[in-house]
Formats: sequence, C-alpha cells, structure tokens
Amino acid sequence: MAIDPTRTVQWCDDAVVLIDQTALPDVERFVTCATVQRVADAISTLEVRGAPAIGVTGAMGVALAGVCSTAAAPAEVLAELETAAELLVATRPTAVNLRWGCEQVVRAAGEVADAGGDRDAVVAEAVRMACWLAEDDVARCRAIGQAGSQLFDGCSDVVTHCNAGALATVAYGTALGVVRAARDRNPDLHVWVDETRPVLQGARLTSYELGRDGITNTVIADGVAASLMRAGRIGAAVVGADRIAANGDVANKIGTYSLAVAAHHHGVPFYVAAPLSTVDALTAAGADIVIEERDPDEVRNYRGQPVTPAGAAVHNPAFDVTPAELVTGIVTEVGVLHAPYGPALAAALSGAR
Amino acid sequence: MAIDPTRTVQWCDDAVVLIDQTALPDVERFVTCATVQRVADAISTLEVRGAPAIGVTGAMGVALAGVCSTAAAPAEVLAELETAAELLVATRPTAVNLRWGCEQVVRAAGEVADAGGDRDAVVAEAVRMACWLAEDDVARCRAIGQAGSQLFDGCSDVVTHCNAGALATVAYGTALGVVRAARDRNPDLHVWVDETRPVLQGARLTSYELGRDGITNTVIADGVAASLMRAGRIGAAVVGADRIAANGDVANKIGTYSLAVAAHHHGVPFYVAAPLSTVDALTAAGADIVIEERDPDEVRNYRGQPVTPAGAAVHNPAFDVTPAELVTGIVTEVGVLHAPYGPALAAALSGAR
Repeated sequence: MAIDPTRTVQWCDDAVVLIDQTALPDVERFVTCATVQRVADAISTLEVRGAPAIGVTGAMGVALAGVCSTAAAPAEVLAELETAAELLVATRPTAVNLRWGCEQVVRAAGEVADAGGDRDAVVAEAVRMACWLAEDDVARCRAIGQAGSQLFDGCSDVVTHCNAGALATVAYGTALGVVRAARDRNPDLHVWVDETRPVLQGARLTSYELGRDGITNTVIADGVAASLMRAGRIGAAVVGADRIAANGDVANKIGTYSLAVAAHHHGVPFYVAAPLSTVDALTAAGADIVIEERDPDEVRNYRGQPVTPAGAAVHNPAFDVTPAELVTGIVTEVGVLHAPYGPALAAALSGAR
Repeated sequence: MAIDPTRTVQWCDDAVVLIDQTALPDVERFVTCATVQRVADAISTLEVRGAPAIGVTGAMGVALAGVCSTAAAPAEVLAELETAAELLVATRPTAVNLRWGCEQVVRAAGEVADAGGDRDAVVAEAVRMACWLAEDDVARCRAIGQAGSQLFDGCSDVVTHCNAGALATVAYGTALGVVRAARDRNPDLHVWVDETRPVLQGARLTSYELGRDGITNTVIADGVAASLMRAGRIGAAVVGADRIAANGDVANKIGTYSLAVAAHHHGVPFYVAAPLSTVDALTAAGADIVIEERDPDEVRNYRGQPVTPAGAAVHNPAFDVTPAELVTGIVTEVGVLHAPYGPALAAALSGAR
C-alpha cells in the first residue's frame, strides 16, 4: 500500500507510518514503525506530536502489538495489547488522548475475545478500531472546519498560535481545519503565524503545512501580533486546545493566553477549535489543570546553538490557561459553542454520547 | 590605553572600541573600529545596539571622521564630519539618540570652527564632545536608576523586555539601571527576562549582564509573562525606549506593546526608563514614528540553523509603539514623569536645557 502524503499518521502494510516532525520543515520524511517500541520512541522524541495525532498513533501502536504477536490464545494476545498500551501511555503520561486511543483498541479487541473470537479475529478488530479512530479523527476535523467556516467571512487576516493543523491530527487539523474551510469561502484569506517559542511549532510546522496547501501566511515573532491588532491588521484569532475544562477555560500551548489578552484588549474575536474529546468534564476550571514544566534547554539552546548564558535559570511551562471569558467561541464538531460554556459544553457532550 | 571591560562603547587610542554583542553570551570580545564605515557596520549588524549606546557610538564615529581626516581647512573637516553623520544616522532610522549624538559632535565642532579654531582644534573638539557624551550617558543612567530606585519597593519580581541595560548604554543601563538601584534597596529582587525574539537580546544580553552583577534572573519565552502576571508573580514591568513621542507614546523593541497590554490587563505597573535624549519633541505621537523592518532571516534562521521553511514570508518589525495610556511612569534622569505626558515631558525638556 502506498503512503498517503496528506496523512500525519497512517496504517500501512502492517506498520505505523508517521511524517517525521522533528525533520520538518527542512526534510519531508516518513518513518515506518514496525514494532511497538519504535512507536513509543516516535511519541517520546516528538516525531509525532499534537494531542489527536498521538492518540491515533498510540491506538495503532496497540494494534501493532497484535500484528506482531505469536500467541495462539486470544487471552494471550489481549494481554500483549494491554502491555503495549501501558508502554505507550507512559511515553507522554499527561496526554489524555493517548490513553484514550490506546484504551479504545484494547476495549474493542477485548469485546471480540469475550464474544469467543479467535486470536486472528482479536488482532483484526484491534487493527480495524485503530484505523477507524484515524478516519474518525479526520471526519471530526472536517466537521470542526465546516462548523467554523463562516467565522472569518469579514476577515482578510487571521492569526494562529502553535500548530493545531493537519500535523497535530491525522489530517486537516482543528484550528487550521477552520482556516482551510474558511479559505474555501474566501480564497484571499491570509494567516499570521506566531512562530511559537520555544519549540517553534508555528514557524516550523504551521508555516510548512499552510504553504503546502497554498494558503498565504506570514511568520511573526510571538510579540508582534498585539501591534498588528492595534493596526487593525488582524480580524480574528483561532487556536487549538490541549485540554478544555468544564467551565470553558482552555489549556493550550504557552503564549496562547498572551494572544488572548491582546485580542480582548483590541476587540478581536478569539476562537478555540477542538474536538469534544479535548473537553475534560472532570476538571472544573483551568486552575485545576497542572501545567507541565519542560526541559529548560528548549529555551537555552536552539539546535545545539546556545541562546542564553550556559546554565541560565529558565522557566519553561508547556502550556498556559486562557480563561473562558476571553474566548469568543469554541468550535467543535457539533458546532460553535458560546458562553456560558459550562452548560454549552455539558449539552454538547451529552448530545455526542 | 587599556580597554575598560565595564564599558559597552569607549574611545581608545583614536578608535571606537565596542563589546561585540553578536558574540555574547558565548564569547566576550571587544572590536576596534578605526574607520567610520566600520562603525556604521557595527551599528547595522547590531555589534552595538541599544538607543543610548548607539547614540554615543554614532558620536564617536563622527569624531573618528575628524581623526581620519587629511583635510587642512576646518570647513573641509566639518564637511567630512557631516558626511560621516549622514552615513551613521542612516544605519538605524528609528533611534533618535543616534541622530542626536551625531549632531552634538557636528555642532560642537562647528562652533569651534566658527570661532576661528584650526583643523586640529575642530577635530579635538569632536573627540572631546564624543567622550563627554559617553561620560554624560553613564551619569544620566545612574540618575535614572536613582530616580526609579523606590518603584519596586513592594515587589519581589519584575519583568523586563529586550536589553535596556549596561549593554544598551555606555554602562549601568536605563531599565536595568532602575533594577540595579532597586536591588541595592531590595537584595532579593528577582527579574523575569523576556528572551525577546527574534534577536534574543533578553536571553543573550540581559541574562548575561544581570548574571555578571549577581542579580537573580530567569529567562522566559515572550509568551510567558502574561501567565505569570495572571498568577500574581510579577509586581512591575520596566523597559527602555528607542524613541518617546511628545505625547508620551513609546517606541521600543518589538514585543514591548504586547507586554504593556498584558500589564494593563492585570493591573501591573508598566514603567519606561530612558534619558531625556530619547524624547523626540518633534514627533507628536507614536503613529508618526516610522518602524524599521528588519531582515526576515532574523526570524527564518538562528545562527545558520533554519527555523522556518526556506523563503517563508516573514514580517519582522524592529519596534512597536506603546501608547502613553498604558505607561504608568517614565523614569528619566530628572525624575519619574507621570501622565499627562505631553506637559510633563515638555517641562522636563525645558528644565534640562
């Protein structure tokens, strides 16, 4: 089976194929993971990143354990899937989508085993579920895009932060899914791309994938957007989310909150685009979200080049929290939600179940 | 004459000696500029940067034209000084200090010529004035520090952007002069250092010079400060200025405005520290300040390592404008000025004359 270059994550000839995001944008390279350990390494080293993308990658990694299994008994195969899921979930312990994706595959395979299916049927169900999750991710991204497609009708320019695009999902993207759908209505739509320090996902990934799709974009340092808003050169902001609390507070890449404050100050609409799986109904508010502190060397160095004095003290939170009151709308696969977000999210979640 | 390692810019053996700020923090290296063109190159390539520092560098560059001159007639020497001043002023259009520093030397030399001084007397006066401007810069920075020394009395943490420190002046600094003077009152004062993309003056220079002085500091990506303010972990902000309009609007390093908006949103006092030479009485408001667009490669690459896709479109303004209404106080060598800034600045300028 040929590799589909539009897919960030795909199942291909009994292996998991990923576009290597550590090599982008210089080199477009696909890596083939034929063992569970190789999939785990790909997640750990950020060859694949973005919550929806690693959820599907984890699911495919669990399915791969089934394909690689030499066990004859369905229960033994199932035990190997569970071991693989544990290994994979441990690579990014805070990523809820990863745990969720792995669990879906184990659960589906377990149901086949419980119903008396043989070992081949258990493996086939694991693969089927992993591939279905990939298709489901694409479908949800396209639904998010459609739901938000009219939000930028009056805008010539929008700004985004980090990469909530095709590269963070299986394809199409969340925030950039909205951009893609809006561009279909408005071919001249231009995107300001926050470079997104420290890991530069905007400069490296968003700029790359928008360019690949022929969407005009301009990279800016993260401190530039506020001035562009003041000059009336940004009509709207759209970002993704790593987790949305029950009250609508949004955890997303560090720098998102700064952009939201600037948008609020200038009366620029600020949208968050994310599938409902991003909503954590068990977390009441953003203050309850524990923010991961990442390696200070991400700030101290760039590709081996020192930036700060050696050993400089660094504070490097991975995410920040944007309070719901700064969010104009949350674009989901079931439509654009508005404040008050508590009831809106609860209704969307209960409708989706 | 030995090089003084505490001086960013100095006149030494008929040459202009600069600490090479493009090499910091890895390498502490002084460059000797023996021609006007070499001085102009040093300003263009940011070997020397910071409005007060380039003001003095420009002044010394004009004096260097006199030293290098082979003309016999005072009027010819003066014409060469004027030509050098034009060349130097053209290197950085936004910083008013550069023009001012060059003009001071041309004016002083012109007065000696008008009074019948010979060519040697004209050259000597140019050198004397340039060296006097350097001493005057240090004195003004210390006065700014004293004027602002009590502003952080209740604060454990302040944030700064870019480098308005010793390295942006001849010595001591403006915003960091205030930090130094405040630290003398409050030894536990901690500084959050915006890394300041794209050129990373905060990560490279502010972190370096604060560390050299034993002032505790922590480097953050530019998108982090807003979250720290929301968490109550920043008591005040202090930045320098490249130009202050007559109404108090402040042009400073790109990203300053974003920080000012965040400070305003969170009720954090936002101070600008600058000598009165930064005030451009002929520019009514910030909207009249032309913002220099710098090389897109500053954003596309870091020390030869690509960041964005090759040839990515980039918008790279060097400065932004913070409107006076977001400025809590302007710390000058004659005291802390408050709104309304139009009359406050006019009074300070007329008192200083």
